[in-house]
Amino acid sequence: MTPQIDSDGRLRHLLTLDGLPKEMICRMLDRAGQIRDTALGRTQRRHSLDGTTICTLFFEPSTRTRSSFHIAAQRLGADVLNVDASTSSTRKGETARDTLRNLEAMGVRGFVVRHAEDGAVATLAGEAGEGTTLVNAGDGTSAHPTQGLLDALTLRQAKGADFSKLKVLIVGDVKHSRVARSDLHALRALGTGEIRVCGPSALLPDDATLAGCTIGNDFDAMLEGVDAVMMLRLQRERMEEGLVSSLEDYHRQYGLSAQRLSRAAKDAVVLHPGPINRGVEITDEVADGPQSLVLRQVSNGVAIRMAVLEMLLG
Amino acid sequence: MTPQIDSDGRLRHLLTLDGLPKEMICRMLDRAGQIRDTALGRTQRRHSLDGTTICTLFFEPSTRTRSSFHIAAQRLGADVLNVDASTSSTRKGETARDTLRNLEAMGVRGFVVRHAEDGAVATLAGEAGEGTTLVNAGDGTSAHPTQGLLDALTLRQAKGADFSKLKVLIVGDVKHSRVARSDLHALRALGTGEIRVCGPSALLPDDATLAGCTIGNDFDAMLEGVDAVMMLRLQRERMEEGLVSSLEDYHRQYGLSAQRLSRAAKDAVVLHPGPINRGVEITDEVADGPQSLVLRQVSNGVAIRMAVLEMLLG
Amino acid sequence: MTPQIDSDGRLRHLLTLDGLPKEMICRMLDRAGQIRDTALGRTQRRHSLDGTTICTLFFEPSTRTRSSFHIAAQRLGADVLNVDASTSSTRKGETARDTLRNLEAMGVRGFVVRHAEDGAVATLAGEAGEGTTLVNAGDGTSAHPTQGLLDALTLRQAKGADFSKLKVLIVGDVKHSRVARSDLHALRALGTGEIRVCGPSALLPDDATLAGCTIGNDFDAMLEGVDAVMMLRLQRERMEEGLVSSLEDYHRQYGLSAQRLSRAAKDAVVLHPGPINRGVEITDEVADGPQSLVLRQVSNGVAIRMAVLEMLLG
Repeated sequence: MTPQIDSDGRLRHLLTLDGLPKEMICRMLDRAGQIRDTALGRTQRRHSLDGTTICTLFFEPSTRTRSSFHIAAQRLGADVLNVDASTSSTRKGETARDTLRNLEAMGVRGFVVRHAEDGAVATLAGEAGEGTTLVNAGDGTSAHPTQGLLDALTLRQAKGADFSKLKVLIVGDVKHSRVARSDLHALRALGTGEIRVCGPSALLPDDATLAGCTIGNDFDAMLEGVDAVMMLRLQRERMEEGLVSSLEDYHRQYGLSAQRLSRAAKDAVVLHPGPINRGVEITDEVADGPQSLVLRQVSNGVAIRMAVLEMLLG
Repeated sequence: MTPQIDSDGRLRHLLTLDGLPKEMICRMLDRAGQIRDTALGRTQRRHSLDGTTICTLFFEPSTRTRSSFHIAAQRLGADVLNVDASTSSTRKGETARDTLRNLEAMGVRGFVVRHAEDGAVATLAGEAGEGTTLVNAGDGTSAHPTQGLLDALTLRQAKGADFSKLKVLIVGDVKHSRVARSDLHALRALGTGEIRVCGPSALLPDDATLAGCTIGNDFDAMLEGVDAVMMLRLQRERMEEGLVSSLEDYHRQYGLSAQRLSRAAKDAVVLHPGPINRGVEITDEVADGPQSLVLRQVSNGVAIRMAVLEMLLG
Repeated sequence: MTPQIDSDGRLRHLLTLDGLPKEMICRMLDRAGQIRDTALGRTQRRHSLDGTTICTLFFEPSTRTRSSFHIAAQRLGADVLNVDASTSSTRKGETARDTLRNLEAMGVRGFVVRHAEDGAVATLAGEAGEGTTLVNAGDGTSAHPTQGLLDALTLRQAKGADFSKLKVLIVGDVKHSRVARSDLHALRALGTGEIRVCGPSALLPDDATLAGCTIGNDFDAMLEGVDAVMMLRLQRERMEEGLVSSLEDYHRQYGLSAQRLSRAAKDAVVLHPGPINRGVEITDEVADGPQSLVLRQVSNGVAIRMAVLEMLLG
């Protein structure tokens, strides 16, 4: 792992939440909370990154995450360059490292990088020059740290800063989910009371990912008394791979309906990283209901990305 | 139809010109006329939308219309985010409504939306949150209101504000044209003296679209004495659908040549929404001739879009 | 050839370095040298093009060159519009001339144009209106003038302003290379002492392109005592066309290794326009070695493009 914290204890890149001190995570949440009005477009933009060029360098396409970072960078006054490196025509046989170093040489100081392979962003960070910083916008199934942060911020806004009494349930395809991994890193760092994980066995990892979690396949049972339910997106590929028999079947066992949600604590909140497959992971009633924080997550995403970019580049 | 005017009589979205009061249309034309120098790049940009994020959300691709709105938004100081929602990979099964609400949650306040289906933009507008505004950049064959406005502005600049003595001829595939519908809405609202419509019967609508218009198939006859000829673009699909036998045949019957144009009033003007199929709808001689206002329309397009965005978001 | 210099001796477009006075080339290099710190992101952005809209209009895709111009334009304060005109859906049968004139009518004042056909950018420049300027970002195999300038700047920084004592070797597929042609134009204009050209005969032009150059096929022999080696990119198409037997074979004969480089002058520098095919034109050891100026070229590219845009539009 490329060290993301330098010898002075300063964050140099944001590659993963794994191993980040609680104090550093809290500092990012605090800062994001403060700039949230800006993130919502309610106040004037900031000028902390005026004249800084930030590049979204996506080796795997994602309109949603790219847009969130794009807006965050614009609201800080940065110039944004979007590079879609997912098409072979873009690459022309060039290595990812050369693509990065060329953009650095053009004066890009901040990179928001997504890559389909585990560890690819950390490897690239190891190649970065002095004064250049990388933010991992999702690599393989490893990490999506800004998603972990925005989920933590959303939980904190709803439930307060003391996570020690919280029971949080993560549901779905944890095995292939970088969101789940970063959520787990954040929840552990913040000292969450109990972390439960639920999904079909074929979609649960059997390594150290779930260390310390309460694990189960029975969604109804796992829901009992939890304060927050973090639903994961089900990729259609899982069916083609034979890991899930059908969407209907998945929904019946692991879909969150209003009736099911009633097993959780009365004031339980529901999160989903989006995009939602309505009627699969979650019913319309729950997605659009009073306990859903889905859109709050999206708003917090811009605030978190502003905070992270400002801390790394400001 | 989603109400585009709120209870205070203020324009909340711009979805169609159908039913808009003449006074409101004139106000938009007036404002666009005033900022036209800015639109041409002759003067300094405005700052009325500094710090506002505007998203071009296109469920159907269009480089030209998107560019015009993009430039208009930039010239007002807005931050622009382009989202191409036409590819399935972008959507990942997400509903258009969820795409919109997510972008809203990111702080986007203005949406410029194009969609292949009639009424889809109005439906989306019905889902929009407080303080968010939508501009229809073309939906199905229903409406393309900024095109109708820019055509009206172009006519007004050439012929004066009193439309009651004008004879205007619309030519071509009215049936499939959102441009024609919005032109008709604008021309009626402005009290145009006579509206003629001409094209092959298979390309003329047989519903209320042409109410009050003089209709005919003989282009030469219809041209007699008109003050303005508004040519429509012929989509190649019409031939595949068997509605037009060949481009040559279409041009022979409905193509505008200099010789044909001589039947119109001496100072008649020619409009075309572009992109032009040269040699099909119109000859090079006419397209590039002194009576053509084609490029003036394009310039006015930026001015109109600036005026509309400023009125909705300013 | 469209005159790129107007009757007052001012540069109106930048289409080619061919025939440009040495004094004008030096002025561009001087200006780029001065703004280099800005280009590297070390200093505040300039505001010389605030409110000016610049369009990258690419009829042939190129992420790297487009990004360099995009950053250059942003650093001057310009608004940038990217138009990818390489897909047929974008064009809808519209001529390149109409695309240009429409964007002009929208208020775009500067165009950065790439096109697959020789002379296409000059032809378009002939259609440009008053007050609009075009920069050739590469047309066919003819010219890539900003690349020629950035290579000249890089050489000048390394070897001083007096080129009369320099021996420069250009290596590879000169025949199909617009980079090589613009390099040759620049090197001649700056009075380079000796220009050597080396490559397989099938990839060397047999016309006036190489007039005055020392030509050979033996890379080792040609390297003796040169002060600079300018490597060219090998397109994979050359193998499909049968002009090169294999990448291995090409590398063995024309690949630059550290051992081979030792034949050049001790302080010889190595240039490559990128993207590099590592292990084909050049080994990792040389590409990343102390004599390589590859990344310096990229940095200089932004500075040159800022200088050119400022001179044309400022």
